[in-house]
Amino acid sequence: MDIVNPSILSGFMELLPEEQKLFDEIKFTIEKNFIKYGFVNLDTPLIEKEEILLSKGGGETSKQIYRIDKETTPQALRFDLTVSLARYVAMHANEINFPFRRYQIGKVYRGERNQKGRYREFYQCDIDIVGNEKLDIANDGEIPSVIYNIFNDLGLENITFRINNRKLLNGFLESIYVKDFESVMRAIDKLPKIGIEKTKLELEKFGLNVIQINKIFDFINLSELENKEVLDKLLNTEINNDVYFEGLNELNKVYKYMELFGIPTKNIKIDLMITRGLDYYTGTVFETFLDGYESIGSICSGGRYDDLASNFTKQKYPGIGLSIGLTRLFYQLNESNLLKKQEEKVNHNILVIPMSEEVYDYSIEVVNLLRNNNINSQIYLETTKTKKKFNYADKIGIKKAIIIGETEKQNKTISLRNFENGDQEEFKLENLVKILNGGKNEN
Amino acid sequence: MDIVNPSILSGFMELLPEEQKLFDEIKFTIEKNFIKYGFVNLDTPLIEKEEILLSKGGGETSKQIYRIDKETTPQALRFDLTVSLARYVAMHANEINFPFRRYQIGKVYRGERNQKGRYREFYQCDIDIVGNEKLDIANDGEIPSVIYNIFNDLGLENITFRINNRKLLNGFLESIYVKDFESVMRAIDKLPKIGIEKTKLELEKFGLNVIQINKIFDFINLSELENKEVLDKLLNTEINNDVYFEGLNELNKVYKYMELFGIPTKNIKIDLMITRGLDYYTGTVFETFLDGYESIGSICSGGRYDDLASNFTKQKYPGIGLSIGLTRLFYQLNESNLLKKQEEKVNHNILVIPMSEEVYDYSIEVVNLLRNNNINSQIYLETTKTKKKFNYADKIGIKKAIIIGETEKQNKTISLRNFENGDQEEFKLENLVKILNGGKNEN
Repeated sequence: MDIVNPSILSGFMELLPEEQKLFDEIKFTIEKNFIKYGFVNLDTPLIEKEEILLSKGGGETSKQIYRIDKETTPQALRFDLTVSLARYVAMHANEINFPFRRYQIGKVYRGERNQKGRYREFYQCDIDIVGNEKLDIANDGEIPSVIYNIFNDLGLENITFRINNRKLLNGFLESIYVKDFESVMRAIDKLPKIGIEKTKLELEKFGLNVIQINKIFDFINLSELENKEVLDKLLNTEINNDVYFEGLNELNKVYKYMELFGIPTKNIKIDLMITRGLDYYTGTVFETFLDGYESIGSICSGGRYDDLASNFTKQKYPGIGLSIGLTRLFYQLNESNLLKKQEEKVNHNILVIPMSEEVYDYSIEVVNLLRNNNINSQIYLETTKTKKKFNYADKIGIKKAIIIGETEKQNKTISLRNFENGDQEEFKLENLVKILNGGKNEN
Repeated sequence: MDIVNPSILSGFMELLPEEQKLFDEIKFTIEKNFIKYGFVNLDTPLIEKEEILLSKGGGETSKQIYRIDKETTPQALRFDLTVSLARYVAMHANEINFPFRRYQIGKVYRGERNQKGRYREFYQCDIDIVGNEKLDIANDGEIPSVIYNIFNDLGLENITFRINNRKLLNGFLESIYVKDFESVMRAIDKLPKIGIEKTKLELEKFGLNVIQINKIFDFINLSELENKEVLDKLLNTEINNDVYFEGLNELNKVYKYMELFGIPTKNIKIDLMITRGLDYYTGTVFETFLDGYESIGSICSGGRYDDLASNFTKQKYPGIGLSIGLTRLFYQLNESNLLKKQEEKVNHNILVIPMSEEVYDYSIEVVNLLRNNNINSQIYLETTKTKKKFNYADKIGIKKAIIIGETEKQNKTISLRNFENGDQEEFKLENLVKILNGGKNEN
């Protein structure tokens, strides 16, 4: 048979076991917090009907989509988890309970241009709280608090939530007679990347005059003040626009609720530059940055939407949600050397090493004992040189191994070898579990 | 905008939140045990190059495959996890350590004919121990013990491992001058389904004479004896064939090691009818049945192979592995009403219910306290009638809710409502965590 060169497609992440453990540690921390906050898991098919995926209209999405080559219903791989959530809510509206708190952690597919740190298959970790017809603004404060706790658990406490409100922006733009909200917001969104001068040129292109442009920059620049002062200035304004004040009222509440849900105010920044390009969002919007690593970009973004499932039903489902792009985040944390906490937390197996086949039986008894006591462990069953066995232990990162020879078998003992310093001590088998759980040797 | 009817493709499983919790409970139990037994996770791309997936040759697989419609490298969704493991081992042979103990839990895709309980997208949960050039037979005893412990944890202790050995079968067939092992084994594999007479006809079709056929049935029928007797009879035979005795020696060892690894012998049955159709297996083969529910079919199967990655490298990687088809298993356990243990184990959130917006602040303080103490909890933040709030609690299966009104806020207390019997009691906030963790009210 011909030998096929073993390889994977470019743009796909595949990790070695030790890296995978770090990845899993993060994924597990995220999921644990989602569950702790009362979100329930959804596990929807990776393949959806194309009419569902493209219900919003084609555009960029339809070019990047992974279509399945089947002569039946046109179908493709999901490119995010939101479309499936919307489809699910519309489909099962009578079987689920609102507010519907769902989480989903799953792979999504986008045929993006190949570039470093960008993947075509990547994990999204999403939470959403979806209401039926209405959803209290207090939820907008709870959603970021989940993220705050996740990053705390990950040892990345120094994060900043940059929050804003689309109604506030819309109302403000309306008050200065700007018509094309979307284009202007996209221009503002690019400001940190392209700088003030280029943004001004962009805005001119959209037909804004100098007065309008200056007003926009004066408005945005308010963000340089302390949060309370920003809110104060936003309130004491000449602007006379209902949508603006509705947005301001929401922003005030969200700020208050974020604090009530345990996010220290030092980790929150009201930032009038945050727009979250997509037309999908209608109220609260936020992005999250790692302090000192802002160049990584937002590590978690989200916001409030008025109408989740408008393509699938006439019923209104407003909601608030967020998404972590885990695959890219992992890549960046790894590149920035920020996975130390995960390295500490990764579990290390106990390795049982029988010195010969004659002691396999007693060695298996030992590993059974460990597993019955929920100690992650494995046994090395190859008959080979001791050096090779120890080498294996070293390479897979074993910290403690249990060595079993004829003596140990006869005496019902074990020799515990510390692979970090080479120490080895003999214990009675009956004391093993206690010792591994941190007790002293009373041999 | 046009409304698209929300639906999914047929042949895909999608669960409601309460069912999903049961599913996740099983998946979590499986993964926890894989980790406890020292297996490391692999998370390979769902899309592989077509040349990798079809390296074994096309056939049935290539018809069922989900191809991606891209004008670049031909690519498709994986149809099992084994091909990816083989590709991974060949690709990373110098970076991984042998014996390589990997687990993988992931979705795979097969465009099978639509039928009840069969899914086109389904989870496989695999473990394999892969050696470099050699792998001790003792590993063949450890692999099923992982399954035994998983099903114990699932509350399904009454399972039977039906084990056999392909060398034993090959040697036996060789000794009676049967040439076409594969066809004969496939016929034997079907025996439980099609019965004795039809199997005999099948065997005649392959050119076997009456004497040969009778010898095959005499051989298979040995399985009706006790395990020790079967092994005895297999040893004291007229057969004179090296492969046969090699297989018998392995079977004896695997039986011994399964017992040493903690599987009671009453849960093991040497069954000479088990062949595991695939030519992939070369030694130990086994299937696992739920006692009393044999009609479900094997709930977990596996075996020993000589050469995992022969399509990708000339290096030999023998291994032993098994696979649980989780999606189908879940469907069947559910149909057979066998998910009681999972229902008991599913975690129930504590629901915090503020009676009005005025007590949101104190209510959030309460839910923060719960979460800081790792108690899964959620807060109901909609301003609506009490009845509707209690209804929500009922519907999502809440057992305990914390009711907060003005009195509770003023007195720094909470009212704990038991939704199973309607009891409600007031506690000091400071005692809440202790009480939820099982302590008494010392109010």
